[in-house]
Amino acid sequence: MLDFRPVFLITGVLLTALAALMCIPAAVDWAAGNPDWRVFLVSALVTLFVGVAMALTNRIGGARLSIRQAFALTTVIWLILTLFASLPFRFGELGLSFTDAYFEAMSGITTTGSTVLTGLDTLSPGILLWRAILQWVGGLGIIVMAISVLPMLSVGGMQMFRVEAFETGGKALPRAAQISSGVTVIFVAVTAAWAFALWLAGMTGLEAAVHAMTTIATGGFSTSDASVGRFDSALIDAIITAGMLVGGVPFVLYLKAVRGDYRALLKDSQVHWYLAILLAASAAVAAWLWLSQGMSVPQALRYATFNVVSIMTGTGYASTDYTLWGAFPVGLLFFLTFVGGCAGSTACGIKVFRFQILYSVAAVQLRKLHHPHGVFIPHYNGRPVSDEIVTSVLGYFFIFGACFAGLALALNLFGLDFVTAISSAATAIANVGPGLGPIVGPASTFQSLPDPAKWLLAAGMLVGRLEVFTVIILFTRSFWRG
Amino acid sequence: MLDFRPVFLITGVLLTALAALMCIPAAVDWAAGNPDWRVFLVSALVTLFVGVAMALTNRIGGARLSIRQAFALTTVIWLILTLFASLPFRFGELGLSFTDAYFEAMSGITTTGSTVLTGLDTLSPGILLWRAILQWVGGLGIIVMAISVLPMLSVGGMQMFRVEAFETGGKALPRAAQISSGVTVIFVAVTAAWAFALWLAGMTGLEAAVHAMTTIATGGFSTSDASVGRFDSALIDAIITAGMLVGGVPFVLYLKAVRGDYRALLKDSQVHWYLAILLAASAAVAAWLWLSQGMSVPQALRYATFNVVSIMTGTGYASTDYTLWGAFPVGLLFFLTFVGGCAGSTACGIKVFRFQILYSVAAVQLRKLHHPHGVFIPHYNGRPVSDEIVTSVLGYFFIFGACFAGLALALNLFGLDFVTAISSAATAIANVGPGLGPIVGPASTFQSLPDPAKWLLAAGMLVGRLEVFTVIILFTRSFWRG
Repeated sequence: MLDFRPVFLITGVLLTALAALMCIPAAVDWAAGNPDWRVFLVSALVTLFVGVAMALTNRIGGARLSIRQAFALTTVIWLILTLFASLPFRFGELGLSFTDAYFEAMSGITTTGSTVLTGLDTLSPGILLWRAILQWVGGLGIIVMAISVLPMLSVGGMQMFRVEAFETGGKALPRAAQISSGVTVIFVAVTAAWAFALWLAGMTGLEAAVHAMTTIATGGFSTSDASVGRFDSALIDAIITAGMLVGGVPFVLYLKAVRGDYRALLKDSQVHWYLAILLAASAAVAAWLWLSQGMSVPQALRYATFNVVSIMTGTGYASTDYTLWGAFPVGLLFFLTFVGGCAGSTACGIKVFRFQILYSVAAVQLRKLHHPHGVFIPHYNGRPVSDEIVTSVLGYFFIFGACFAGLALALNLFGLDFVTAISSAATAIANVGPGLGPIVGPASTFQSLPDPAKWLLAAGMLVGRLEVFTVIILFTRSFWRG
Repeated sequence: MLDFRPVFLITGVLLTALAALMCIPAAVDWAAGNPDWRVFLVSALVTLFVGVAMALTNRIGGARLSIRQAFALTTVIWLILTLFASLPFRFGELGLSFTDAYFEAMSGITTTGSTVLTGLDTLSPGILLWRAILQWVGGLGIIVMAISVLPMLSVGGMQMFRVEAFETGGKALPRAAQISSGVTVIFVAVTAAWAFALWLAGMTGLEAAVHAMTTIATGGFSTSDASVGRFDSALIDAIITAGMLVGGVPFVLYLKAVRGDYRALLKDSQVHWYLAILLAASAAVAAWLWLSQGMSVPQALRYATFNVVSIMTGTGYASTDYTLWGAFPVGLLFFLTFVGGCAGSTACGIKVFRFQILYSVAAVQLRKLHHPHGVFIPHYNGRPVSDEIVTSVLGYFFIFGACFAGLALALNLFGLDFVTAISSAATAIANVGPGLGPIVGPASTFQSLPDPAKWLLAAGMLVGRLEVFTVIILFTRSFWRG
């Protein structure tokens, strides 16, 4: 059997941190005279109590995590933290069912941004802030995981970033913990800068804080049912578009840039592809809006870039109902859902680097077909890619595809129609937010889905956020046999 | 520059064969007193003239094909044969536009089975027979190609079948040409057997011949707008289900069985997976029909197996409009569209063996994750699979996925809605036949699509039928630089 003590120890420590974060909405609600501050405070105390108890009863003398423990830890942390994070949704003014509360918390902490709530505009500040904090913490958590845990676990090609993250031009950077704290400082600073910019652009303090957090975390929770469309401001759209763009870049590259190595950021091929795909897709959608929908060029550019960046990075804000734009943008945005941002960012999806490797493999194949005796090797970022990484990335695509198809079919079983099921499965597993169609489209919420569908989607979000393999491995027999 | 002479020589020879085939519907229409026999005869003469001219002017002294010539040949043959095969659709009683005629011919020769025609029940026997002959010849052509050309071209893992096709239990079989003629004999015999069975089950001679040809070729053209549903006979459904099943198995295995090596057929892991997927999917759909649609168990089993086998093998007959069965069957049949049958059969799609290799790669990945220093190798049919084949198969998935997404988006550009575009792209590239939704669903035809969409779909059918790589390589610069 697996020794779960270190798993519970770390979970306990993180629960106490979660409890501390709950004090923020408690304080804000108290200042606003909203009685919900008690709910946040009680939730914080419960979370603190459980966390301290778990930490104290599972102390061990500085043992290192085995790989199996690290896998178990990753999934267990997200499951348990989500459970406690859902308390304010369950017991506060919203009084959501357990299913809805857990769905909302999972959607927050995985930075998905699908919601079961309507009437956001009239909610108290505490609950709006809590949703944003969950996304923000989830976004930071995934960056830290991508630096510290995932490369060690060699999940779906992430081992490529093991070396890269620890070298800058031949000089070794300090260990993962130090990199993580450096990245955290940058994450906080960037969020603060965007909050300030949004406040200058006319948002209230709360709106600016919420949108800055959910923008940089590419989460997509808003303070209004109309999402960012509520402000109807080209300036705010531009600031948020830039913020989502920033959130989809590997944060380690910002750290390197701050330490003087600008080239790492400017020369990274994943960043190049990421920007190239966003540019091409935005230009295509803008051209469509201009030519077939009669929008002016500036308006077409504004709406196209905002929605393309929002969907591809997995943020999921809506500035307008893009499903009314006709066939082409809907199709393009559906496929972009799967692409996602860069590895090591807050963005979700399959990640750009995996498409680069797949493209490189296919290009090598095409050459080999008519030069059967030539030796061609796929490259990534100027370096040859080993067979091990190629199969790792390609195995990832299979598991991702199988999970997507399985999730869509399971949703079909609970009566969801083709478009709703297929787009919900995609948006959950790629952590984007809105689906397609009248039921779960960008102008709607996930409220009306049956409870089993919500649980399936919450599971899909977790699987997608943790790079699929990390969760799926827990369901293999060989994992538990050790 | 590529020397196109051998390419045109072979194309010319095949055109004369096509001309000979056109004499069959000519004779049938003449016997039925239908004036269209003249159209078939003139088409045959034109085709014969061009074929002979191409063959004579491109004679070369027994030179062997280079690999590049083999690639060019494969695509050129199908393009040119389709052109001449479309003549009777253009100039006969149907008087189709050039676009519609080419679409119908391409849909036939690639065994797709999408149609632009309505009123099939009132058409003359010649044209119905011609559609069936096209599918039958296309099905045989793809089997022969899978034995002789594709393994040599190492397309998407097909090189695995290079060795297997030429060995039976250590004893070497004669060369590809001899295997091909053996398989052709079996193909003819099986078709004749099914025609006889269908005739005994109550079909007319023409109906039996047409359905036997389009069943074994997993094509799906019928003699009625209601497709096989027109006969409304459980016996006919069962015979056709069995025939489609037979068409989706590698024909080389039948040849081995006839020569005494039954084990090759019974022990082939691709056949096992193929049957297992069909069984599981049929059982799931039957259970759904029984539990949620109130069908009796025998009726549920009949409709479930027929439609699951029809869609997965890429036949595309409809015995009923399965889009009315609710969400789950529609979703499942959509994903089965991509799976297809076995390599070396008449069936289409990605092919079962590629999913086996992908599954094997993913399983190895999962083991490696918690045993980072273990050595695990993916297997297929009991043998280890080389890295080269793994990347070949996985490159295939990428190109297939990219073509599917590109085709769907291009269809969106011409105004097709999400479901129509995505299901048309899937059904074309997997050579299945019907799409989803009110426009191209199983109860409808492709007639109403705009012309550019029809050309795109015809291109998609060709790309899918020729294992994607074979066509795509012609669009790479390095191919033409030599």
